[in-house]
Amino acid sequence: MTTVTRTDVLIVGAGPVGLFAVFELGLFDMKCHLIDILDRPGGQCAELYPEKPIYDIPALPSVSAHELVDRLMEQIAPFKPEFTFNRMVSGLEKLEDGTFRVTTDENEVFEAKVVVIAAGGGSFQPKRPPIPGIEAFEGESVFYSVRRMEEFRGHDLVIVGGGDSALDWTLNLQPIARSVTLVHRRPEFRAAPDSVNKMYALQEMKQLDFRVGQVSALRGAGGQLEAATIKGPDGDLEIACTRMLPFFGLTMKLGPIADWGLNLHENLIPVDTEKFETSVPGVFAVGDINWYPGKLKLILSGFHEVALMAQAAKRIVSPGERVVFQYTTSSTSLQKKLGVA
Amino acid sequence: MTTVTRTDVLIVGAGPVGLFAVFELGLFDMKCHLIDILDRPGGQCAELYPEKPIYDIPALPSVSAHELVDRLMEQIAPFKPEFTFNRMVSGLEKLEDGTFRVTTDENEVFEAKVVVIAAGGGSFQPKRPPIPGIEAFEGESVFYSVRRMEEFRGHDLVIVGGGDSALDWTLNLQPIARSVTLVHRRPEFRAAPDSVNKMYALQEMKQLDFRVGQVSALRGAGGQLEAATIKGPDGDLEIACTRMLPFFGLTMKLGPIADWGLNLHENLIPVDTEKFETSVPGVFAVGDINWYPGKLKLILSGFHEVALMAQAAKRIVSPGERVVFQYTTSSTSLQKKLGVA
Repeated sequence: MTTVTRTDVLIVGAGPVGLFAVFELGLFDMKCHLIDILDRPGGQCAELYPEKPIYDIPALPSVSAHELVDRLMEQIAPFKPEFTFNRMVSGLEKLEDGTFRVTTDENEVFEAKVVVIAAGGGSFQPKRPPIPGIEAFEGESVFYSVRRMEEFRGHDLVIVGGGDSALDWTLNLQPIARSVTLVHRRPEFRAAPDSVNKMYALQEMKQLDFRVGQVSALRGAGGQLEAATIKGPDGDLEIACTRMLPFFGLTMKLGPIADWGLNLHENLIPVDTEKFETSVPGVFAVGDINWYPGKLKLILSGFHEVALMAQAAKRIVSPGERVVFQYTTSSTSLQKKLGVA
Repeated sequence: MTTVTRTDVLIVGAGPVGLFAVFELGLFDMKCHLIDILDRPGGQCAELYPEKPIYDIPALPSVSAHELVDRLMEQIAPFKPEFTFNRMVSGLEKLEDGTFRVTTDENEVFEAKVVVIAAGGGSFQPKRPPIPGIEAFEGESVFYSVRRMEEFRGHDLVIVGGGDSALDWTLNLQPIARSVTLVHRRPEFRAAPDSVNKMYALQEMKQLDFRVGQVSALRGAGGQLEAATIKGPDGDLEIACTRMLPFFGLTMKLGPIADWGLNLHENLIPVDTEKFETSVPGVFAVGDINWYPGKLKLILSGFHEVALMAQAAKRIVSPGERVVFQYTTSSTSLQKKLGVA
């Protein structure tokens, strides 16, 4: 039996704009649930450049994406948002009573009166490495992310890549896999030095095998990998391999949202500038994913968009109730919600 | 001979939105000059509630108006904005070459390719106290602010009020006036305790006269004040008085901007949501003073508005030049302008 998670507003995307939407919706007593394909809040900027300074957030002369996200998480904490990470939204369906039913790629079901798409450039999707025939093994024995570590227990695992993901999973899965071979095209890594040191230490103790080279061929049948060929400086080597994790970076795709009937404009979602509502009433789009005349893909614009969106969302979530605009500086009622009065 | 101050963009109002406009315009190499009726940056929020926390500035869970303004001043410092304080804009005229000429109530002249109205609720104007016939002396011997301290030298000065302005000017003008009488309806003040203590110390030394009461009548001719009647707990007293400074608080009025031909909508300036331009091309309106469908008078909305406005302003200031949209996080060219690369 499928359990259904019910909330007032379902937010697709937990980047800065999705997070601040929780604040503006919370001021009007709307509960929010956020779904994100990444494994933590912050979205694109926290994923792609967590430590790089951003200079154009108003009143924050210099702030890293990481700090920006921390600050927003602190600001929305009074509203107790709920998060589902590591999931891509797949289906959107409007039920007879006007409620939206949203499903994920793991078949979870969410129901909400309002859906806010704050999905930035779309969902991050792994890049496929240039290994002939790899498609036949995907989802069976070749994976691009680790959702359940148990899937790797007792296996001969090959991890391919030289970034943090490759190094982190090499270290995390080494204790439970039967064997781990890390393959990278050169001995230098773009990863935390500490992880690299740990990996080399494990290699020294022969508890894993690091090989310079590239995976050039796969062997197996029925989706089940049996061996991988590594093309190295000294020639080809075939090693036993029943699971593979290639980490070749992420690319962004709009994903299943493209099929939600939102009248896309060059892969963006057109909205009005009064409510930031899409062509489907009750579905809003904010931040980098929307489009209107003058649109700039700036975080500060998303902040404005969610404030106006929240007014319209309130009218849907609480029809008939008067929407009173108040200031956090002067309203004791808002200050109580924020836990400061 | 009148000197003319020339700049790329003249900004009317130095509140948070006017200040952040300097940042967005600066990223496109436009120089800004700001005019404000107050004597410092910050506008309405810094004037009315400098120490009260604001909770809805994105990524600043709690910030006082004072701190918000300090942070914005730091953020725009690389662009070296120029300020003219204590002035109300009066005239707006479009010259033949498309340049705007803006004048102030002190007859200063500014010329700019673009005018940005960021005047919030309008200009702060002093409230007139309920003293019969006071209008006849205004601007001659009764003043509501101190623009030049010399105007008070050698005069018998009556200051009326119980707030910081009344106390500050009592202390500042006492050394140069012939006599200072402070009139307030009760012995308690809404002012910095330190100022109150200093005032009482000067009274102790008979260097000023503090009287509980209200000014009930004025005497004089041709705009020149000669005496004021103070109605106190022990009856009426007439004292010699050639200058008066009543401080009865501020009220907000749109002021001369109302006569600029901007097709006002309930005392607000209608703009489009693509460029935030008014009905006069080249004149933009941002922040609380503008109106469009969905408008909320939020500081964060003003931040968004100035970002979009800056693109349109650039096309006017540098016609024919391509406007390239870049991110501060990744553009070395923007980082150089900010002094961080």
